[in-house]
Amino acid sequence: MKIITFLSDFGSKSSYVAQMKAVALNLTDARIIDITHEITPQNIVEGAFILKTSVPYFPKGTVHVAVVDPGVGTKRRGIVVATSSQILIGPDNGLLIPAAKRLGEFQVYEIKNKNLMMNNISNTFHGRDIFTPVAAHILNGTYFNEIGPLVDDYKRLDLGSFKIKDKTVEGNILHIDGFGNIITNINGMRIKNYFEYGKKIMVFIGKKRIEVPFVRTYGEIKKGQALATIGSSNLLEISINQGNAQKKYKIKTGDSIKILFS
Amino acid sequence: MKIITFLSDFGSKSSYVAQMKAVALNLTDARIIDITHEITPQNIVEGAFILKTSVPYFPKGTVHVAVVDPGVGTKRRGIVVATSSQILIGPDNGLLIPAAKRLGEFQVYEIKNKNLMMNNISNTFHGRDIFTPVAAHILNGTYFNEIGPLVDDYKRLDLGSFKIKDKTVEGNILHIDGFGNIITNINGMRIKNYFEYGKKIMVFIGKKRIEVPFVRTYGEIKKGQALATIGSSNLLEISINQGNAQKKYKIKTGDSIKILFS
Amino acid sequence: MKIITFLSDFGSKSSYVAQMKAVALNLTDARIIDITHEITPQNIVEGAFILKTSVPYFPKGTVHVAVVDPGVGTKRRGIVVATSSQILIGPDNGLLIPAAKRLGEFQVYEIKNKNLMMNNISNTFHGRDIFTPVAAHILNGTYFNEIGPLVDDYKRLDLGSFKIKDKTVEGNILHIDGFGNIITNINGMRIKNYFEYGKKIMVFIGKKRIEVPFVRTYGEIKKGQALATIGSSNLLEISINQGNAQKKYKIKTGDSIKILFS
Repeated sequence: MKIITFLSDFGSKSSYVAQMKAVALNLTDARIIDITHEITPQNIVEGAFILKTSVPYFPKGTVHVAVVDPGVGTKRRGIVVATSSQILIGPDNGLLIPAAKRLGEFQVYEIKNKNLMMNNISNTFHGRDIFTPVAAHILNGTYFNEIGPLVDDYKRLDLGSFKIKDKTVEGNILHIDGFGNIITNINGMRIKNYFEYGKKIMVFIGKKRIEVPFVRTYGEIKKGQALATIGSSNLLEISINQGNAQKKYKIKTGDSIKILFS
Repeated sequence: MKIITFLSDFGSKSSYVAQMKAVALNLTDARIIDITHEITPQNIVEGAFILKTSVPYFPKGTVHVAVVDPGVGTKRRGIVVATSSQILIGPDNGLLIPAAKRLGEFQVYEIKNKNLMMNNISNTFHGRDIFTPVAAHILNGTYFNEIGPLVDDYKRLDLGSFKIKDKTVEGNILHIDGFGNIITNINGMRIKNYFEYGKKIMVFIGKKRIEVPFVRTYGEIKKGQALATIGSSNLLEISINQGNAQKKYKIKTGDSIKILFS
Repeated sequence: MKIITFLSDFGSKSSYVAQMKAVALNLTDARIIDITHEITPQNIVEGAFILKTSVPYFPKGTVHVAVVDPGVGTKRRGIVVATSSQILIGPDNGLLIPAAKRLGEFQVYEIKNKNLMMNNISNTFHGRDIFTPVAAHILNGTYFNEIGPLVDDYKRLDLGSFKIKDKTVEGNILHIDGFGNIITNINGMRIKNYFEYGKKIMVFIGKKRIEVPFVRTYGEIKKGQALATIGSSNLLEISINQGNAQKKYKIKTGDSIKILFS
């Protein structure tokens, strides 16, 4: 089964997403899956995080087209990132790199071959005119070396690393989900040794210092109360059971967070 | 043709929906259909209503995964509800029951068999780690008795019943749709005998008492005027032709509504 | 490969879209593609524009179901529009006509044959009860002359034409996309002769007069600055690089815009 996914910051109101899918349908019978089109406009870091947390679950051979592309039409390159299991296609602005790293070793090809693109290439929509047709051709068997040269100077992107030092863990906020859960870049496996389920931990978030229980899941504590847990992407998150932590603490993606050992 | 549907309160911004679909794609080539992912967070009643109004139209054999799940990771059970025509999978919190009743007789199985789940089960995302793989295995031919024991003490949910008494009908508001139409739980077939198309009826809604025409469809009256009609789910609804009744009457799901016979 | 698309103003919260897809799945194994369901309620012009900009990219034989339908249940007719390459189905209110014209010559059939509809037809949801089953039957080989009579008095819709006169171009705003880009009805090919890339042009928009550079793409100018460019649908658009032009100029779909030659 062939699969092509789409991720973008296009929103759901325009015809841009449908145009990309239509182009794909002309070239391939692959299954089409949306990751999301609600990335905050031009927010490459958020797009990279959502892509990174999605790819581990997709079958081998899946081709992902990701378009968060403020530099479209300028000299920024288009790239194909080939990992041992899946393929990522989009702008060379860092968007694809955290997902690629998550999948293991990878190689980056610059998209140069005009035979793999649409005949008329707009200056403002390479998702439709370049990335989607390249994805379809790869699903149809085009070899990586037909795409263009291997490049090593692709744009890097680091989603931020957390530090464990003395009695504190310092990280930042990667994502706010639809529930208002605050998802940090702090790896759950790494901190499990320092904290104990059921005990309280001290969190510095926004302008607040809060003491919250560290629990296995939201429903363990009363409705409306704050908590810390290790979420479904194995990252520490701050939540309110059946409430919206983002609204309460008024923080946003990119803000820093600090946790104190007891 | 195999079909798997997804309904949730995850919203469209995160990767949660894509993760569920990716898990499904690893196990089955079934068609994937979204019902909605915009259920108000943790609103089981709203999710149950949307599921109930969707299932009657799906083909025999469709498997529905529904996840509005504030109790995820606690002792609340996961269940498979088998009707004579379709299958419903999700948390044992009432979400699936109105849809099951709508489809006729049904049996409820507790999900116990770990061979049907992902190897690593998070505490916060059973939609991905349990319900979706169970759905895929059922589509692949797993028998219901392999899932776990039949249970009879599943959580009931009633979407509210309306009363006809003396000269009034009393019910409540089940749903506000994207147009702002106010959809009640009052069955259209039952009240047709009491009202006459073209005549006015008296409605007590929010803090207001309004007199509106009872008509066959929105366009029969002037733009901007309120009306009562029997909507596409055979329920009485209060609407404004080309306007937003919810905004005008400032009511919400769960509020009560009363109608007076003339 | 058979393809059916859906476009509507239903929003993403209700079960209306799922109900249409479920009806389709009972009758056809065609691929299902969403164009959008976020058309502003009852905004036929916006729906017509989005449909028109989508159809050119779809494969031959695609059947489009479009439902922006304030007159549902009244005497407005349902129609099938057959072009030489694709088929459009929906209400006779102008919605389908700009897309049909974009595809070339076309013929309009009134939907009359009750055998192609659902058994029970609601007064408020012909998308589910008439347009979707008709689409499925056409995908299954039903001939156009089985649908109903050819009609010539279908409702026309013009998305507005722009005028070039003396030293000005006058047009109007067709659409605001998810980035806040303001998309006009001014054809890019036609005005390219009058303006020069890199030079400034004078734009009268909302209550403002602004001077903006005419550039090939957003990223050519500084972040936060306004620009004019020819967008991916070959229409002149006013944008702010990595910003939201609609919010800045406080205009809306349908407003007029004037451009002065230097």
